[in-house]
Amino acid sequence: MKRIAILGSTGSIGRSTLSVVESYPHRFEVVTLAAGRNIDTVREQACRWRPRLVSVASEADAGRLRGQLKAEGLSRIEVVYGAEGNVRAATHSAVDFVVSAIVGVAGLEATYEAVKAGKSVGLANKECLVAAGELITAEARRRAKPLLPIDSEHNAVHQCLRGGRLEEVTRVWLTASGGPFLSVPKEKFASLTVEQALNHPTWKMGRRITIDSATLMNKGFEVIEACRLFNLPPQQVKVIVHPQSTIHSMVEFVDGSILAQFSVTDMRLPILYALTYPERIPSELRFEVSDLRHLDFCPPDMDKFPCLGLAYEAAQAGGAKPVALNAADEVAVAAFLDARIRFTDIAKVVEGVLAETPNRKFESIQEVLLADAAARQSASKLIEALRTNPPLPHSASVMSQGD
Amino acid sequence: MKRIAILGSTGSIGRSTLSVVESYPHRFEVVTLAAGRNIDTVREQACRWRPRLVSVASEADAGRLRGQLKAEGLSRIEVVYGAEGNVRAATHSAVDFVVSAIVGVAGLEATYEAVKAGKSVGLANKECLVAAGELITAEARRRAKPLLPIDSEHNAVHQCLRGGRLEEVTRVWLTASGGPFLSVPKEKFASLTVEQALNHPTWKMGRRITIDSATLMNKGFEVIEACRLFNLPPQQVKVIVHPQSTIHSMVEFVDGSILAQFSVTDMRLPILYALTYPERIPSELRFEVSDLRHLDFCPPDMDKFPCLGLAYEAAQAGGAKPVALNAADEVAVAAFLDARIRFTDIAKVVEGVLAETPNRKFESIQEVLLADAAARQSASKLIEALRTNPPLPHSASVMSQGD
Repeated sequence: MKRIAILGSTGSIGRSTLSVVESYPHRFEVVTLAAGRNIDTVREQACRWRPRLVSVASEADAGRLRGQLKAEGLSRIEVVYGAEGNVRAATHSAVDFVVSAIVGVAGLEATYEAVKAGKSVGLANKECLVAAGELITAEARRRAKPLLPIDSEHNAVHQCLRGGRLEEVTRVWLTASGGPFLSVPKEKFASLTVEQALNHPTWKMGRRITIDSATLMNKGFEVIEACRLFNLPPQQVKVIVHPQSTIHSMVEFVDGSILAQFSVTDMRLPILYALTYPERIPSELRFEVSDLRHLDFCPPDMDKFPCLGLAYEAAQAGGAKPVALNAADEVAVAAFLDARIRFTDIAKVVEGVLAETPNRKFESIQEVLLADAAARQSASKLIEALRTNPPLPHSASVMSQGD
Repeated sequence: MKRIAILGSTGSIGRSTLSVVESYPHRFEVVTLAAGRNIDTVREQACRWRPRLVSVASEADAGRLRGQLKAEGLSRIEVVYGAEGNVRAATHSAVDFVVSAIVGVAGLEATYEAVKAGKSVGLANKECLVAAGELITAEARRRAKPLLPIDSEHNAVHQCLRGGRLEEVTRVWLTASGGPFLSVPKEKFASLTVEQALNHPTWKMGRRITIDSATLMNKGFEVIEACRLFNLPPQQVKVIVHPQSTIHSMVEFVDGSILAQFSVTDMRLPILYALTYPERIPSELRFEVSDLRHLDFCPPDMDKFPCLGLAYEAAQAGGAKPVALNAADEVAVAAFLDARIRFTDIAKVVEGVLAETPNRKFESIQEVLLADAAARQSASKLIEALRTNPPLPHSASVMSQGD
C-alpha cells in the first residue's frame, strides 16, 4: 500500500491521480490533499477519500471546510491552509509519495520540503524544474530519492533511460507536436489571433500551455526540465517536431541505439508509472499498435519559434535566467490572451526580461520567488512600453490583411 | 578484456564481428575461430588475429592450413576440424563469449555445447532458436547465462525489454519490411519470378533469406525465435509491417507503454551490443534523428503471406514442427531459386511437410538433426510431386501474362 499526498488535488493532474487511485484501491491510500480555492471539489474529495489532512488556500476556506466535514461526521480530518498547510500536506509523516501538481510557483516550497523530508516525488508542476530545478534535483540526488516526471515527454525519457546508464546517453530527443502554426509562414506570425493560437492540433489543454505550445516555449521549458531532471547539458537535449505526438520522446545512447516510448495520450499513464515505478501494473490504457499507420517528423524552425532558442539560453545559464524565462512568459502570454500584445511580442518580452536579469544562482526557494516577482514586474513594464510605443506595422501585418 | 570465439568467422556476421573487435582492440581478444571451406579467408584471419585455435570443415583443409600457418611462423595456433572442431572452438576454456554465426543446422551442436559449458552466447544463427530453441534456451536458463540476440529485431526487443520485467510484457511487436511484394496483389503471386523475389526493397542479403523475406517466412522464423528467446507464447509475439525498417522492433508493457528501438541498419550494432551487454560503449554507428521524416506501418496480410501463419502454427506446436518448418522451407526456397517450383508452391511444400511431421519434443541436438533430415526428404518428395503433377494453371497465371 503506497500512501500518497496530492498537491493540487482539484486540478487536472490531481483529479487524474485520484482516478488512478480509484482503479487500484488495494495499492494506494490517499493520506493528504492540498487544493486551492475550489472548496466544493476538495470537500467531495475529502468525503470520498477520507484523507488524514486537507490543505486549502485561505484561513476562511479552511474554517468553512472544517464545518462541512464536521457535518459529514468527518471532523477527524485535519484542515489546514496556505503555504504552510501545503508543506504539512507534502511532509506528513504517513506519506510515502507526493504528487506535485500545484500550478505555478505556488507549488515550489511544498515540493522542495517534500524532497527534503525524504519523500518520493512525482513532478507534474513545471516550475519545480524550470525555476527551482537546480535546488530540487540537488536535494533529491543528495537523498538518493527518485523524482518521477508526470508528463508524457519526460516520463517517456525516464522509461527509455532504463535501456542504459545515464553516462551512456548521447542525447535526449523531446518530441513536439509543432503547435497550430507549424506550417504557417513566419511572415504571418505578427498578425496571428488569440483564437488561432488557442486552436492546438492534438492536445486540449489550459490557455497558457496552449499558447506556450504555439510559441514552442512549452517545449523550451521541457528542455530545461530534462536538463535538470536527467542532469544533462542543454546541448544533449534536442527537440524534434512530430505532429502526431505518438512517440512521446526518445533517448539516444553512445552505441548508436535509440529507444522511443509511445502510448495513448492520457495523463493517467505517466501518473500510474510514477506511482508504481519500478513496477509496471496492468492498465486499460491501450495503444493499439496494429492501428499504427504514419508517423511524421521534421526539425523545429528556430527562426519561426524564437522562444525555443531563448529557453536553450536560459537552460545554459541556469539560476535566475530560467526563473525569469518562466515568469516573463506567463505575464506575456496573459497579455497576448488579453489582446494587449501581438503573438510575436511574447518572445520580445521574454527576451527583454532575460537581458535585464542578472546571472545568479539561488540557495533557497525564497530567493527563487523574489526573482520570479522581479521578472514579472520587468515583463509588465516591457509590455506597457510595447503598448505605448507600438512598433510601426511591418510588412507581415500589412500582407496578412489580404488573407 | 572479453575473450571471444567466433563460430562462422568467414561469413557476413563473422566478418562484422571481427570489424567490431578491430575497433576496440583493448576490449576484445579473439581466442578461437571456426570457419567452413573458405581457407584463404580463415588463414588471413588467423594471421591477423592470432587466435589460439582455428577449426575448419575438413581434415584435408586443416592439414593445408596448418602448413600455411607454420610457414607464417604461427605453428602455435592449433588447427582442428569438423563438428568436433567447432565444439572445441565453442567450448575452449579461455573463451568467455561465443558468437554463434555458422549458417544452418551445422551450428547447432557447437552452440548447444557452448551454452552447456557456461559460456555467454551471442546468437546470429536462426536455427539455434527455430530448430533447437527449446533445448538451447532451457540450458541457458538453467545456468542463468545470457543468450544475446545478434539480429536487428531481437536485439531491439532485448533493448526494449530493459524498460520492465519479462512478466510485465503484454506483447512483442516485430517489424517487417514487408518484402518486395507488399503491394503486389495476391492474384499475381503464382507467376512471380525469381528475379522479382530477389529484389528486396531495403536489405541486401543472401538469396535464401531474401526469398524468406518475400514470403514473410523470415518474419515467421523471427516469431519463433522471439518465443524461445523471451519465453513468450506465440500469441504475445506480433508482426507489424514497417516498410522503412527504421524501427527494428517494439515491446508493449502491461501498463500500456510501448518502447521501440531504432538505429542504423548495420549488423555491427547488435554485435557490439551483444559483446558489451550490459554496458553500452561508444560507436560511430550514428542514426541521425534529426533526419527522421516518415515512418509507415500496416498489419501483415496473412492471406497473401501464408508462410507467416504456418510459422505461428509451428511456434505453437514446438518440438518437431519448427524443425520441419525450417528444413522444408530451405528445400522449397532452393527449388524456387532453381525455377523448379512457383513462388506460391513454397508455402504449399512447407504446409505439406508440417502436416506429415508428427508432434514430438526433442531431448538432444542429434534428434533435432534427424528430424531436420527427415523433413528435407519429405520436402523433396513433395516438390517432385508438384513437378510431375503440376496443378492446372489457375486464373492468376493466365491474368499475369498480360502484365
